[in-house]
Amino acid sequence: VGPEALLLQKIKSTFTSFGVFFLQMGWGDLGAFGEPSKETPNLDQMASEGMLFLDFYTANPLCSPSRAALLTGRLPVRNGFYTTNAHARNAYTPQDIVGGIQDYELLLPELLKKAGYTNKIIGKWHLGHRPQFHPLKHGFDEWFGSPNCHFGPFDNRALPNIPMYRDWEMIGRYYEDFKIDLKTGEANLTQIYLQEALDFISKQQASQQPFFLYWAIDATHAPVYASKHFLGTSQRGLYGDAVREIDDSIGKILKHLQKLGISEDTFVFFTSDNGAALISAPKQGGSNGRFLCGKQTTFEGGMREPAIAWWPGHIPAGGVSHQLGNVMDLFTTSLSLAGLQPPSDRQIDGIDLLPAILQGKLIDRPIFYYRGNEMMAVRVGLYKAHYWTWSNSWEEYSKGIDFCPGQNVSGVTTHTQEEHTNLPLLFHLGRDPGEKYPLSFVSDEYQRAMEEISAIVQQHKVTMVPGEPQLNVCDKAVMNWSPPGCEKLGKCLKLPESDPKKCFWPH
Amino acid sequence: VGPEALLLQKIKSTFTSFGVFFLQMGWGDLGAFGEPSKETPNLDQMASEGMLFLDFYTANPLCSPSRAALLTGRLPVRNGFYTTNAHARNAYTPQDIVGGIQDYELLLPELLKKAGYTNKIIGKWHLGHRPQFHPLKHGFDEWFGSPNCHFGPFDNRALPNIPMYRDWEMIGRYYEDFKIDLKTGEANLTQIYLQEALDFISKQQASQQPFFLYWAIDATHAPVYASKHFLGTSQRGLYGDAVREIDDSIGKILKHLQKLGISEDTFVFFTSDNGAALISAPKQGGSNGRFLCGKQTTFEGGMREPAIAWWPGHIPAGGVSHQLGNVMDLFTTSLSLAGLQPPSDRQIDGIDLLPAILQGKLIDRPIFYYRGNEMMAVRVGLYKAHYWTWSNSWEEYSKGIDFCPGQNVSGVTTHTQEEHTNLPLLFHLGRDPGEKYPLSFVSDEYQRAMEEISAIVQQHKVTMVPGEPQLNVCDKAVMNWSPPGCEKLGKCLKLPESDPKKCFWPH
Repeated sequence: VGPEALLLQKIKSTFTSFGVFFLQMGWGDLGAFGEPSKETPNLDQMASEGMLFLDFYTANPLCSPSRAALLTGRLPVRNGFYTTNAHARNAYTPQDIVGGIQDYELLLPELLKKAGYTNKIIGKWHLGHRPQFHPLKHGFDEWFGSPNCHFGPFDNRALPNIPMYRDWEMIGRYYEDFKIDLKTGEANLTQIYLQEALDFISKQQASQQPFFLYWAIDATHAPVYASKHFLGTSQRGLYGDAVREIDDSIGKILKHLQKLGISEDTFVFFTSDNGAALISAPKQGGSNGRFLCGKQTTFEGGMREPAIAWWPGHIPAGGVSHQLGNVMDLFTTSLSLAGLQPPSDRQIDGIDLLPAILQGKLIDRPIFYYRGNEMMAVRVGLYKAHYWTWSNSWEEYSKGIDFCPGQNVSGVTTHTQEEHTNLPLLFHLGRDPGEKYPLSFVSDEYQRAMEEISAIVQQHKVTMVPGEPQLNVCDKAVMNWSPPGCEKLGKCLKLPESDPKKCFWPH
Repeated sequence: VGPEALLLQKIKSTFTSFGVFFLQMGWGDLGAFGEPSKETPNLDQMASEGMLFLDFYTANPLCSPSRAALLTGRLPVRNGFYTTNAHARNAYTPQDIVGGIQDYELLLPELLKKAGYTNKIIGKWHLGHRPQFHPLKHGFDEWFGSPNCHFGPFDNRALPNIPMYRDWEMIGRYYEDFKIDLKTGEANLTQIYLQEALDFISKQQASQQPFFLYWAIDATHAPVYASKHFLGTSQRGLYGDAVREIDDSIGKILKHLQKLGISEDTFVFFTSDNGAALISAPKQGGSNGRFLCGKQTTFEGGMREPAIAWWPGHIPAGGVSHQLGNVMDLFTTSLSLAGLQPPSDRQIDGIDLLPAILQGKLIDRPIFYYRGNEMMAVRVGLYKAHYWTWSNSWEEYSKGIDFCPGQNVSGVTTHTQEEHTNLPLLFHLGRDPGEKYPLSFVSDEYQRAMEEISAIVQQHKVTMVPGEPQLNVCDKAVMNWSPPGCEKLGKCLKLPESDPKKCFWPH
């Protein structure tokens, strides 16, 4: 046992709290990742005090599946957060979704709870909003936030406004009780979510209880908002205002940990659930840097994410890692930090990143890029092979829905689903991070790389046991008409008759 | 006189040496600017110890005019480094160019010489190679490098190989005496240029003489090369190897200044002469980050440059500036540091950046984007108005010459020269740094912004007095057949008969 192993043991013998910031931001939205206005001083400082991950991925180019993957350590196609309604479609949990996270799945907070952790989610849950899917039934002790995106305002007849919960019960609804001014973009929500985080951390510190805080606020998701103090302060418009407010909030949370003297006992990770939504650009859209396309796609812009690990006294300041990482690794890494083993009765896709974070090791592992029920691409080392390519359909594109605005790579950013399973399109992401120059099929480099990749893909496919798809059925009757607690507030709405049908997923 | 002015005076009363690193690299080639492989630790450290300029421009999207602009502080259309052979064409100084820098132009080293500076250029001169244009006739005391790009190898009959000079005389030729292996990409040139810089700095320090060192090496220009030690070490291929070697060299030069104890007396600036050449991608092409297109164009990718100012003890570490800067400002800023006034008998376009660098001020000034004889665009604040747009001609494009690979913005990246002088295309570079979303002509924002911009453009045009164009005439007889010193080496070649004609500039 060398000194490195000793260090790990020492760490594992202490109780380490975890904070995970899980937001929707693109790779290029941070100054540390090259955003030209460089308006994220706190995240940039977090990176300079911690470790920057340059090759970190989310598990899906859309929100709900990525969040399910982070909390289960499993690919969405395993944990059920996908659809089979049509081939290779992204699906999520709008408020008419019938499915959600299954009891069979073991979530990170469920496991941490057994080790004495108090778990809190602040922000968007997105793993189903029917009673059986409630986060407090899946390991969280506290919740402040909403089950779905803050779309709206709705008329409460065709669509109810999304409720806000504190723990088991709703405490109001977006737009009605928690204002979002869609004209000015003003909303105070990020400030409220910030205060929740500060209070929770203070409480845990006071009671000497280790905690897991999952800060999953939704300010940069369209419709984008920011509080008054930040409105109009960014070079980047409203989206930049929201980014600045998030950056400021994260800075305050980290400083709070330091002030309380628990920063060296708290492992903090910042990352994103999908690439920036370029469809909302330029007014409400973020940046994926020089990567191709954005949210909804399996190009790098859709799934490569900004990522920072921060843990003063443990992670060397200013570190940079090229470890291929995935949000699912946060599941396994957190368990490892808590001295727990991941479940052995199921396939876990996340790996323990501690050797990469603490010892600078590079762990060999592939990254799989799924869209719904289809493995679209795989990355092995610096090579990425596309087995299927698709941006979106001609029909959607002709309506102005463009996931790759201003970008067009012939035969790659296609508007029909293109199969390349016999001869995958291969890119070298070091020389060509923008996925513009497929390698020649007849080159030695192609042959060599595909030989290795094919074996990995074959192994992946033969051992894949898909979970029961949760995102196939939609029903107006399951919407947030009458969430628990609505009676006390006089905010119960009348349920329509149940009319379950196949959800329509256009992308 | 406040404390800030005192600080400036104190600085001005000392002799400050200058180093300018002037290379061909794109905005996105540095880790500090978001290159995903983050392989420039020395430049990134230079930035963290100095000031990063995020809105810094070159004076032209091509090499020779930018270099003439840096050394004269004047736009190429004033100092003669442009062509009128066709509308809006980029031109440079290939070895059959007849023109070059005129005696009327006052170069930075000429002015610094009067204040006791020793001036050295290491690398590519590019301001004309006929005897009257020799850098030692224009203020430099020493030269080690070549007059033109390292294209070749040539057969010494149709085209002679480019000579390397030490001071007044050639000392050999590229490919013959200074090897570049076009197959492996191996060449030792950057190491030689590095040693020249270290030796020059040591000599100046020993003799207590202030100096101006212009390190203008050409390693990332195609054909790209690197020395053996760096070959194959980058994720990015040969181009990345060259970047790594340059980064390593700059680190060594800065450490040398520190070791000699003169870093606080030496103002150092790093920037680039044009955007990365995307046409050479992916094997030999760099990155302009998320900016549109590259070298040869007046989109941001062609002219926005990485830029770092470094001066320990004077520039606060970790500074970031949004000052709109231009390579021409290095002329005026250097004069200011040396306590000299810029010439008053001519229009100087460069401004003194010291208030931005030392006091964090933002100086209001426009950026003009020229292509040959045409003002294509102008930036005022965060707005950029295109009066003309053009990537390149259909004819060139159909040959596979693409300055915007994978990028296509309808009506913007056009293959015919599109005039918008009556209704310029307007972009907000904060919300839309990629120039993808022109503002609506009927919006209030458009009206307000264009009112301000139009006045600035009008003022610019009425006061513009173009210089005599130097890049119109080409003649095989002026090539580097028999440079001074060729007799001693037995390397004189036979001149062909003079046959001057209009140079052909396709872009």
